[in-house]
Amino acid sequence: MGDTLLYLEDLQPGQHFVTATYTVTEAEIFSFAREFDPQPFHLDDAAARHTIFGGLVGSGWHTAALTMRLLVQSGPPVAGGILGVGGEITWSAPMRPGDTLHVESEVIEITPSRSRPERGIARLRNDTRNQRGETVQTFVARIIVLRRPASRA
Amino acid sequence: MGDTLLYLEDLQPGQHFVTATYTVTEAEIFSFAREFDPQPFHLDDAAARHTIFGGLVGSGWHTAALTMRLLVQSGPPVAGGILGVGGEITWSAPMRPGDTLHVESEVIEITPSRSRPERGIARLRNDTRNQRGETVQTFVARIIVLRRPASRA
Repeated sequence: MGDTLLYLEDLQPGQHFVTATYTVTEAEIFSFAREFDPQPFHLDDAAARHTIFGGLVGSGWHTAALTMRLLVQSGPPVAGGILGVGGEITWSAPMRPGDTLHVESEVIEITPSRSRPERGIARLRNDTRNQRGETVQTFVARIIVLRRPASRA
Repeated sequence: MGDTLLYLEDLQPGQHFVTATYTVTEAEIFSFAREFDPQPFHLDDAAARHTIFGGLVGSGWHTAALTMRLLVQSGPPVAGGILGVGGEITWSAPMRPGDTLHVESEVIEITPSRSRPERGIARLRNDTRNQRGETVQTFVARIIVLRRPASRA
């Protein structure tokens, strides 16, 4: 991946990026859930055993937030930052305490803007995987990407 | 809405729910960004003025997390909790410091599970709006909803 900033012209379908890893703790799962998703299966291991998860799991939004941090810190070095306008998110397996996550990204599609010549939209598929290779989250994102400024072309 | 728990049989397309409100502070926007989305437009008002946002904005994932808290605390009282399996998220306007958010939800579709007779999937459109009525986020969620247990039917 290197440190060179990526502009719209540098992205093409099929490109792959892999982030660093991050291990989430039970304390972090509790902390996020208390603040943003206070439900028993995210807050209390004993209570979570009686739910469909069979034990404590992280909030899907916690998975999403950790995915974003991995992308910002060690994902594709998109010029101007990672500016999402939306996407399709799927939580296919729970994130559990002690899971070590990483994100694998693939460029799906590039669409130059017709109204804003200085930018375009990239579709990126971001699979967040745990230490067993299981996909815990897929986020097919639409992000704004700047074109390379003419003076630096 | 009341306090009565909602089972799959209680939901039908067109039902509406409205949450309480929540006002997000600049300190909360900084705190979330430092932990999960450390980019200049979420971390530094002066730096954010030179980005496409023209000033500090909250992370889209912060909007999503605050939306979840509003739904859990004052949204539709779904039996068994709000268990998302995924959905389509769109950030149509930035969340800025001092914004007062609420969530308006509408049931879109109910699909009983064929393999798991005790549950089904509801599609819920959740519009997160600010104090000016602008939609900052739309999340069309797919959530697991339990059928009413036979003993309580």
